Amino acid sequence: MSKDSTSARPAPQASAAPAPRLAKGFRDIEAAELRGLNEMIAKIREVYERYGFQALETPAIEYTDALGKFLPDQDRPNAGVFSFQDEDEQWMSLRYDLTAPLARYVAQNFQVLPKPFRRYAFGNVYRNEKPGPGRFRQFMQFDADTVGAESVAADAEMCMLAADTLEALGVKRGDYVIKVSNRKLLDGLLEGIGLDVTDSARRLTVLRAVDKLDRLGLQGVSDLLGKGRKDESGDFTKGADLTPAQTMAVINFLEKPVLENRSGNENANFVAGVEDLLAIQTLCQSAGYGADRIRVDQTVVRGLEYYTGPVFEAELTFEAKGDDGKPVRFGSVGGGGRYDDLVARFTGDKVPATGFSIGVSRLQAALSLIGDKKTEALGPVVVLVMDKGEIARYQKITQDLRNAGIRAEMYLGSSGMKAQMKYADKRNAPCAIIQGSDERAKGEVTIKDLIEGAKAAAAIKDNKEWKAARPAQFSVSETNLIDEVKKLVALHQG
Amino acid sequence: MSKDSTSARPAPQASAAPAPRLAKGFRDIEAAELRGLNEMIAKIREVYERYGFQALETPAIEYTDALGKFLPDQDRPNAGVFSFQDEDEQWMSLRYDLTAPLARYVAQNFQVLPKPFRRYAFGNVYRNEKPGPGRFRQFMQFDADTVGAESVAADAEMCMLAADTLEALGVKRGDYVIKVSNRKLLDGLLEGIGLDVTDSARRLTVLRAVDKLDRLGLQGVSDLLGKGRKDESGDFTKGADLTPAQTMAVINFLEKPVLENRSGNENANFVAGVEDLLAIQTLCQSAGYGADRIRVDQTVVRGLEYYTGPVFEAELTFEAKGDDGKPVRFGSVGGGGRYDDLVARFTGDKVPATGFSIGVSRLQAALSLIGDKKTEALGPVVVLVMDKGEIARYQKITQDLRNAGIRAEMYLGSSGMKAQMKYADKRNAPCAIIQGSDERAKGEVTIKDLIEGAKAAAAIKDNKEWKAARPAQFSVSETNLIDEVKKLVALHQG
Repeated sequence: MSKDSTSARPAPQASAAPAPRLAKGFRDIEAAELRGLNEMIAKIREVYERYGFQALETPAIEYTDALGKFLPDQDRPNAGVFSFQDEDEQWMSLRYDLTAPLARYVAQNFQVLPKPFRRYAFGNVYRNEKPGPGRFRQFMQFDADTVGAESVAADAEMCMLAADTLEALGVKRGDYVIKVSNRKLLDGLLEGIGLDVTDSARRLTVLRAVDKLDRLGLQGVSDLLGKGRKDESGDFTKGADLTPAQTMAVINFLEKPVLENRSGNENANFVAGVEDLLAIQTLCQSAGYGADRIRVDQTVVRGLEYYTGPVFEAELTFEAKGDDGKPVRFGSVGGGGRYDDLVARFTGDKVPATGFSIGVSRLQAALSLIGDKKTEALGPVVVLVMDKGEIARYQKITQDLRNAGIRAEMYLGSSGMKAQMKYADKRNAPCAIIQGSDERAKGEVTIKDLIEGAKAAAAIKDNKEWKAARPAQFSVSETNLIDEVKKLVALHQG
Repeated sequence: MSKDSTSARPAPQASAAPAPRLAKGFRDIEAAELRGLNEMIAKIREVYERYGFQALETPAIEYTDALGKFLPDQDRPNAGVFSFQDEDEQWMSLRYDLTAPLARYVAQNFQVLPKPFRRYAFGNVYRNEKPGPGRFRQFMQFDADTVGAESVAADAEMCMLAADTLEALGVKRGDYVIKVSNRKLLDGLLEGIGLDVTDSARRLTVLRAVDKLDRLGLQGVSDLLGKGRKDESGDFTKGADLTPAQTMAVINFLEKPVLENRSGNENANFVAGVEDLLAIQTLCQSAGYGADRIRVDQTVVRGLEYYTGPVFEAELTFEAKGDDGKPVRFGSVGGGGRYDDLVARFTGDKVPATGFSIGVSRLQAALSLIGDKKTEALGPVVVLVMDKGEIARYQKITQDLRNAGIRAEMYLGSSGMKAQMKYADKRNAPCAIIQGSDERAKGEVTIKDLIEGAKAAAAIKDNKEWKAARPAQFSVSETNLIDEVKKLVALHQG
């Protein structure tokens, strides 16, 4: 379970007691979700390492200019990043992805790195954007990148990596697809219809319009390519101002599978894009990754400006029921592409690169709706404190259990027996360990099986009957305690 | 290996190409160090979970007031934290430890938490302080805290946790000690000699003076308790302005083991402090943790103001040789204590709490000097590209290896045979897979054992002889490739 705060209470006066609240757009991640997250990370890491990527961790903070968040003639960082000045008045920002810091790292260490340089990285990234339901300002990405490889084999590999990763996480074949396209196609098409693709603002407007196909459909994209679009709320988004004929050309391109409908377009960029895609398709298919897993789809463009060649998107295709019982489609849970110019920003030398990034938090939310509902993890064994004068004895019992590898704790609050049992239940303890003065005199300990007990209590409605049965509670000699607890824990762990 | 930058190049003009550089005081962590770090985290986590702590992850960013970084009547955060304003003009800061966010979390979720609430957390924290050699502005902490437990048993447990964690990380018994003291001792002593301990600034000056005992010795502390101290560079630090008699009382206290020299001090706070320590000692000893592992030491105070009772420090006591061959003493690698007022800051209700924090990065640096020098981890198998027209075939070989669970990659650069072999060596590949046209015709593949090969090449000085021997290179049929590679990898992994 996690708690989030998308609307925060107003800040109190600095001198008053502050309200205990999360910053807007941030969230706490609690034990059960963290356990799932760690399992995911371990599985993703295993696949990425199997592909020969090596780990790298860059810091969360970089100089703003090194992240590329200054536009020419600006002396403040652009929006979207959290920024502050250090004591030298240099601007620093929190990383907003893992790719920009990689470009900085590669440019800085180029001479000593193996080439190609294959690295994976995971960690939180930060966006200074308006948060919303399910959209947070801190979230985790898990990236693999190959830097210094011009060959489309590096792109094909990213697609296979994406497919293998999703399957390792339990997504069944048929429940996902990796879609591949190429920026050269759209650039070639735009060139062919007389648009200046070096006008980067206009090119980006076209890209972002096409990127909305899933959400807005062909008519919505068509509006955004032309004069613009008014949405349901009445807000108007200015379009790319293409002529109707130009718009129609783009829509035609989006409607028909590109590999079957490419004749007639002789633009060099377009032709190169098609060739890349054919090569990627061949590589994937001969390695056993058919169109059910990886397929060319010209509607994929990705919203980021820096891609220069193949782009990919990992999509979940199954429908699941949300908490409200309504069907949920997840769509994209990761993506990437080729970015041949990011390192050149520093050094001037072109360093071809390609990468794939998983949105871990988003994927985890999707996976939580398929797969078996996990039972709550077993908590620690709780040793009750029956007699405060004897805590050294209870502490020793606890420590003995721990030394035997059993998760255990002594109750550390100051409440009585009833509250202690409630506490043990709340922790989902497999059992409570009880030693009163009678038992102590006999050198015995009582083990109360809380999971059997809970089941029995649910089955037996009559309170009197339940008391008489005293289910799943038994005494053992102190010397047998560890063995008996081990047996019981093993039983409940299945 | 890691690279750091404690002095950065000046920022370029925003419109020029930026220099690829780390922000001052930050560092990259590369594959070998990350592997060690991950192993450490797994071991620490295992011990903390064995003690019944459950995981929690709070965000890196919190409202500044929630972290307690506003002093009354201030409208900017105090120094030491990285801060910025969100669009509502509220101040946010990067967390500087994991305890302040825990206090916020507990205050926010108090009603639904089990009490006591036992949580562990690890993650990076950020300090806006002057960096220096080995002192970075981002570093990792690993904390356990019990909130809502008044009993000193909770403090005793923290000491045992610290001991077990160090041993789990390979620190031998005798090579570390957990020192325990109590803030009540010094507070009681100061009260007894007529100092106003509610004058928090002055109390803190005394605490920080005592905390420097290790580094400055008794004379240095004595100076800092009195008028002040001039260091080697000539800088003067103002003292706590105690009278000579008061200073002498503190020095006497520091010099003699407190449990043997406590008669005569009847101050209630002091007596309570001694009683706490005796109880902790009893609990630890009866659980099997003798004075060789956990012992009372009144010189421990910890520099943080918020501690209210027992304080602990985990120290490595062995000497190791640094990179320069000189002996290095590590001293403190973790610490903690009781802080009964942190949650009350929000709610007004006192919630007793105690915790322990490991400085993971610092401890890793120390551990790297003991223990076996680890051999570099084996890299992936590298499939060479002998014939660019056949990359689909090489890709398939690579994918087959991966599907069999073998870490593998196809060479993705554009260089020739010699550079490819160099690349495989640089990646520490166990072997290279080679298939030229002759081998392809025969349905064979050549496996070149790079680790045997490297050994042999080192042994055979004569280049001609080496060429003749062609050590550790053999051909197998394509169908046997996976089995043969598996055998070879297993051999090199030991």
